[in-house]
Amino acid sequence: MKPIMLFPLEGLPIIRPGDDLVALLAEALQRWEGPQAGDVLVVAQKIVSKAEGRFVRLSEVIPSPRALELAQITGKDPRLLEVILWDTAEVLRARPGLIIVEHRLGFICANAGVDRSNVAPEGEEIVLRLPEDPDGSARRIREGIRRRFGVDIGVVIADSHGRAHRKGVIGVAIGVSGLPALEDWRGRRDLFGYTLQHTEVALGDLLASAATLLLGQAAEGIPAVLIRGVLFTPRESSARELVRDRAYDLFR
Amino acid sequence: MKPIMLFPLEGLPIIRPGDDLVALLAEALQRWEGPQAGDVLVVAQKIVSKAEGRFVRLSEVIPSPRALELAQITGKDPRLLEVILWDTAEVLRARPGLIIVEHRLGFICANAGVDRSNVAPEGEEIVLRLPEDPDGSARRIREGIRRRFGVDIGVVIADSHGRAHRKGVIGVAIGVSGLPALEDWRGRRDLFGYTLQHTEVALGDLLASAATLLLGQAAEGIPAVLIRGVLFTPRESSARELVRDRAYDLFR
Repeated sequence: MKPIMLFPLEGLPIIRPGDDLVALLAEALQRWEGPQAGDVLVVAQKIVSKAEGRFVRLSEVIPSPRALELAQITGKDPRLLEVILWDTAEVLRARPGLIIVEHRLGFICANAGVDRSNVAPEGEEIVLRLPEDPDGSARRIREGIRRRFGVDIGVVIADSHGRAHRKGVIGVAIGVSGLPALEDWRGRRDLFGYTLQHTEVALGDLLASAATLLLGQAAEGIPAVLIRGVLFTPRESSARELVRDRAYDLFR
Repeated sequence: MKPIMLFPLEGLPIIRPGDDLVALLAEALQRWEGPQAGDVLVVAQKIVSKAEGRFVRLSEVIPSPRALELAQITGKDPRLLEVILWDTAEVLRARPGLIIVEHRLGFICANAGVDRSNVAPEGEEIVLRLPEDPDGSARRIREGIRRRFGVDIGVVIADSHGRAHRKGVIGVAIGVSGLPALEDWRGRRDLFGYTLQHTEVALGDLLASAATLLLGQAAEGIPAVLIRGVLFTPRESSARELVRDRAYDLFR
């Protein structure tokens, strides 16, 4: 087995709405002599959202009665809560300082992924929503890389999420293209010839977590990571595969 | 920033009780010219448990009334459930085919980490418990590596866990030595000078998940991975840091 390598993509400018993200990623990839077939490009959700112009000025938001009610419970800005509700399928927990929801994309996370940090100079009350369709964002980046470099890679749009039961954020895949978000190892045999019965691996989340080791390292952040050496069978996929159906979620 | 590299440690024999795991890991590390200061060695829980002789013959286990009751609910072998109960602080969910517990080490997982697969030739009813004290196991490996190579590294004992809300297993740290299991990034500043308010990173779990990309890849499995290039401040730590206190777990 060869080593796996994680290459940080650095030197991207601050991303603005309408920026050609593929062109900027391609330029950063040149430093590592471009991608190779079978590589995986993990891109931080934040730069995808920015390029897609997912900013909302809080001064332009009128909170609904539900947002005002949640503001009472959480102590958060009712306009922020209104934006959170735009992307929420169901509010699961609301406590002082905290709101955890099922995002309309299916996964469970705090604040519906709406981000105040790292968005605009202090004082500017602007928030950033997740990409409208992160699987689609991943697919467009993958196609753009294929056009420029002539190689097929996997793409993961990564965010960092807190979790039930455990402390600290990890990386999770919210958009996937070209690799199995969930990889089924059932039927494989282990050392003694046992057939594995229950091993589905969250490949998208493993890749996002591996990249998170770099995404957060530099003072100014690393917005994307190229991963080389992971074996997988390319296929179309969706980050939805990683979402446990509510009927099978025993801790909802 | 330099790339992060994940080196698979291969060629270890099937581990037996009493084996000198440090000696075997050291030999495998030679292939990559030994560890360097600041590297992290991620070791699969299974080989640590085997070296520590954590096997149990089911034929020698007498199920308690509680194990018999759980067997009725889950359909699992009551002797296996008895072994699970030895390591259980609290049973959280029991359903047909499934038992999820708080392990006496604090984390929440299926079967209290007791493993039937990959343990003994089919037909032999032997199960494998987690290491008695995985932080201690990590510390002993770290000290053994320091004695042999004269360098200080971090060590993570990794297992794969399912999760609330999401499908597929990821890697988690159940034992840690020499690196922060939980890394506190609060107080750091982001691109725009915002001070981050809520970013604690589950460094131990990120490392375990990165290594899991290799742990499961080869047909015969990769029992350990050396990770190079992750920046962290060495300190004594414990995988307990990653366990959310029950009073703050909103999804228990």
